[in-house]
Amino acid sequence: MQTSSGARPNMPLAGITVIDLGQIYQGPYATLLMAKAGARIIKVEPPKGEPARLRATVGMSATFPFAMLNSNKQGVSINLKHPQGKALLKRMVAKADVLLENFAPGVMDKLGVGWPVLRDINSRLVYASGTGYGLDGPDRDNLAMDLTVQAASGIMSITGFPDGPPVKAGPAIVDFMSGIHLYAAVVTALFERQITGQGRLVEVAMQESVYPSLASNLSFLYNRKGEVPPRTGNRHGGLSIAPYNVYATSDGYIAIITVTEDHWHGITEAIGRPELKADSRFISNPERVKHMPEVDAMVEGWTRTKPRDEAIAILRGCRVPCAPVRDLKEVINDRHMHERGMLEEIDHPEFGRITVPTSPLRFHGADKVATTPSPKVGQHNDEVYGGWLGLTEAEIAGLKSDGAI
Amino acid sequence: MQTSSGARPNMPLAGITVIDLGQIYQGPYATLLMAKAGARIIKVEPPKGEPARLRATVGMSATFPFAMLNSNKQGVSINLKHPQGKALLKRMVAKADVLLENFAPGVMDKLGVGWPVLRDINSRLVYASGTGYGLDGPDRDNLAMDLTVQAASGIMSITGFPDGPPVKAGPAIVDFMSGIHLYAAVVTALFERQITGQGRLVEVAMQESVYPSLASNLSFLYNRKGEVPPRTGNRHGGLSIAPYNVYATSDGYIAIITVTEDHWHGITEAIGRPELKADSRFISNPERVKHMPEVDAMVEGWTRTKPRDEAIAILRGCRVPCAPVRDLKEVINDRHMHERGMLEEIDHPEFGRITVPTSPLRFHGADKVATTPSPKVGQHNDEVYGGWLGLTEAEIAGLKSDGAI
Repeated sequence: MQTSSGARPNMPLAGITVIDLGQIYQGPYATLLMAKAGARIIKVEPPKGEPARLRATVGMSATFPFAMLNSNKQGVSINLKHPQGKALLKRMVAKADVLLENFAPGVMDKLGVGWPVLRDINSRLVYASGTGYGLDGPDRDNLAMDLTVQAASGIMSITGFPDGPPVKAGPAIVDFMSGIHLYAAVVTALFERQITGQGRLVEVAMQESVYPSLASNLSFLYNRKGEVPPRTGNRHGGLSIAPYNVYATSDGYIAIITVTEDHWHGITEAIGRPELKADSRFISNPERVKHMPEVDAMVEGWTRTKPRDEAIAILRGCRVPCAPVRDLKEVINDRHMHERGMLEEIDHPEFGRITVPTSPLRFHGADKVATTPSPKVGQHNDEVYGGWLGLTEAEIAGLKSDGAI
Repeated sequence: MQTSSGARPNMPLAGITVIDLGQIYQGPYATLLMAKAGARIIKVEPPKGEPARLRATVGMSATFPFAMLNSNKQGVSINLKHPQGKALLKRMVAKADVLLENFAPGVMDKLGVGWPVLRDINSRLVYASGTGYGLDGPDRDNLAMDLTVQAASGIMSITGFPDGPPVKAGPAIVDFMSGIHLYAAVVTALFERQITGQGRLVEVAMQESVYPSLASNLSFLYNRKGEVPPRTGNRHGGLSIAPYNVYATSDGYIAIITVTEDHWHGITEAIGRPELKADSRFISNPERVKHMPEVDAMVEGWTRTKPRDEAIAILRGCRVPCAPVRDLKEVINDRHMHERGMLEEIDHPEFGRITVPTSPLRFHGADKVATTPSPKVGQHNDEVYGGWLGLTEAEIAGLKSDGAI
C-alpha cells in the first residue's frame, strides 16, 4: 500500500492487509471499518458465496445488507475443504497482517487452518475470532444468532412493557456490538505488534460484548437487593425519573427526558403551564416520580394536540432534551448524516443507486477512502491471486479447474 | 509502565497513558477497556465528581454503574474553569498519549483546552471526542442522551409490536455502541502514531455508531421500494422467516429461530409432530411464512406445556437454534461468563461484594489486568500529580487551597 512516490497514504490503517473470512454481520462490519480506515481487505468466500448472499433474491448475487457492509473489499473465492484451497489460504496468511473469522468455535481448527497452524506460518499474524459465547466455557457450542443472544444476554428481558412479553430490540445490536468489539481487538493487537513484532489470537464473544450495556438495569437489580425489576416500557428503567417517556403526538411520537430541574421548567413553559413549577406535587424529581402517571398524562395531553415536529420545535426552544421518533425512511435520508459524509449514495452495479454508510470512526485530517461497491464472489481472484500473491495465470486456472477457488 | 527489570508488561496497551475526561457511560466504557488492555487511565473529574456520581444515593460517592465502568482507573480532580486547573491539564497532556472526552461539542474549546490548543502542546496526542451527533453538521447541537438518540436514530421505530407504540431497547445501546467505537478510533490512531509519530483528532457520534445495526431493517425498506415496514414484535423484521419468534413456556419465554430446513425438522421432532415435515403447508420456509400464525400457534402450543429450561433442553437435543429469555439475575450469575473471567466478583470499598465486567476484548497469551475498584474523586491526586507528573507536595497543596483541584 505504498503510493508511486513511496509515501505512506494518509490513512490510519494504510499498509495493513486483512484476510477476511467474516460472514453475515459481525465479521463484515469489523472489516468494513478497517477498509474505511485504509486497510486492504481481501474478502474470502466459498465459491457459492458467504451465507449473507444466500438470502439474495433470484438473479442477484447479494442482499442489501451485504452491499452496505462489504464496500471497499476485494472478493476472492476459496474452497477451504479442498487441499489446494487450504494451501492457498496459508500462502495468503504468510503475506497478511490479520485473519478474521466468525465461524462457530472449532471450525477453522477442523479445517486444519486454525490459529496454532497459522501462527507457525506467520508469527506477526493477528488472528481474530468472533463467536457467540467464546472459544471456551460450558456454553461455547450454543448456537448463536442475534435473536438467541438477545434472549440469553438479558436484553429481551428488559425491553417491552410490564404487562407484555419480553421484546427483542429491532436492530441487530448483538451482531454489530460484537463486530465493533472485534475491530477494536484487532487494532489493539496491531498496535502492540508495532512494538513487540508479534501477533496474537484475539477473541470477542457476542454475549460478552453486550453485557456492559446493561449497566443501568443491573444497578436497579442491585438497588432492589437482587430482586429482578419489572420491564418499564418507555419509562426510565428504574422508574426514578419523570418526565422520561415516549409521548404520542397528533402524527407520531417523541421522546422526552428530564435530567435537571431546568428541563422540567422548560417543559412547563413549552406546554403553557408555567404555574406547575410551583406545584408541590411536581416540585422536584422525587415528587414527580411519585406522581408519574399524572406527569405523563399532562405532558401527553399537550403533545397529542401538536404535530410531532412542531412539538419538538417548541420543546427545543425551551431547552428540553427531546427527539422525534424517526422512521427508517427519515433516517436513511437524514440530511445531517449525508452532509457529514456518514451516509453516501453510490451506484451499485446490482442495486443501482443506494445509500450506504461509510464509517462512524472519523479520523480528522486523514484522506477519505472513496467507496467502491461490494464485490461479487471471486471478482478479484485474478487481481489478488495474480497481482498481490504472485501466482501465474496457469496456476490460477489450475486452482479454478480443480475446484479449489 | 516499565517493570523494574525494564521489560514491557505483556499487555497490549502497556505504556499508554490516557487523560480520561469521560463521563456517564460512553467515555468511561471506552477507557475501561483501555485499562483492561494495560493502559494507565487517569480519570479526571471536577472536584464535585462527574455526572454519574451525582446520581449516587446519600452517603455513597458513586453509583453501581460507576463502579462497573471505572475499575482500574486512577482518580484525580481538576477544576477546568480555574486557570491553574487548565494549566495543570496542559502539563498532563504534555506527558500523555491520549485525551478522551465526551462533553457536548464545543465545551473543551470554550474552556480553552480544545484540540487546537492541546495538539500544539503535544503533537503525538490522540484527542478523542464522543458526542451525540458529531462535531459539525446541522444537528451538532441537539441534546443527546441514550433515550433521545434511540428515538432519532430509528431504533425505537423498529422495536415493539405493530399494534403498539415504538419501544426503546432496554439497554443503553447507543451509549455503549458509541463507547466501543470511541475505543476503536483511539487505538486506530495509536497504531498509526507508531508509524507516523503524529497524533490525530478522532471523533465518534452516537447516532452514527448505531446506523449500521439497522442493516436488516433497511433492507426491508429497500425491498418495499421505500415504504416503511411495520414493527413486527418478536417476529422476523421482514416477516420472511418462520418459525422465528419468542414463545411463552409454562414459566418464562424462549426464542427460536430457523435458518435451515434442518432446524424446522428439528422442531417437528422436538414437539412430537414429525408428520409436519411432509405437510404441504409447512414444506418450505416460504410456505411456513404464508402460514405464520398457524406455525407460531403450533410451536407455542407445545412450549406452553413445558417449563422453559426443559423446552430448551429438548429443542437443543434436536439441534434447533434457541435460547431462554434470561433475566438479569440469571445473567449476572451466569456460570459461563464467570468461568471465562468476563464477570468477576470484587470487594468494593463502598458497595461490598459486587459483580463487575472485565473486558469483552480477549487477548490470548496476554497477562490479565487484576481489577482494582473504581476510585473516589481525587483519590489518586498525590500519586498522579506528585508521582507521575512530578509536582511537589507544596504545589499540590497550593492547587488544592486555590480550588484548582
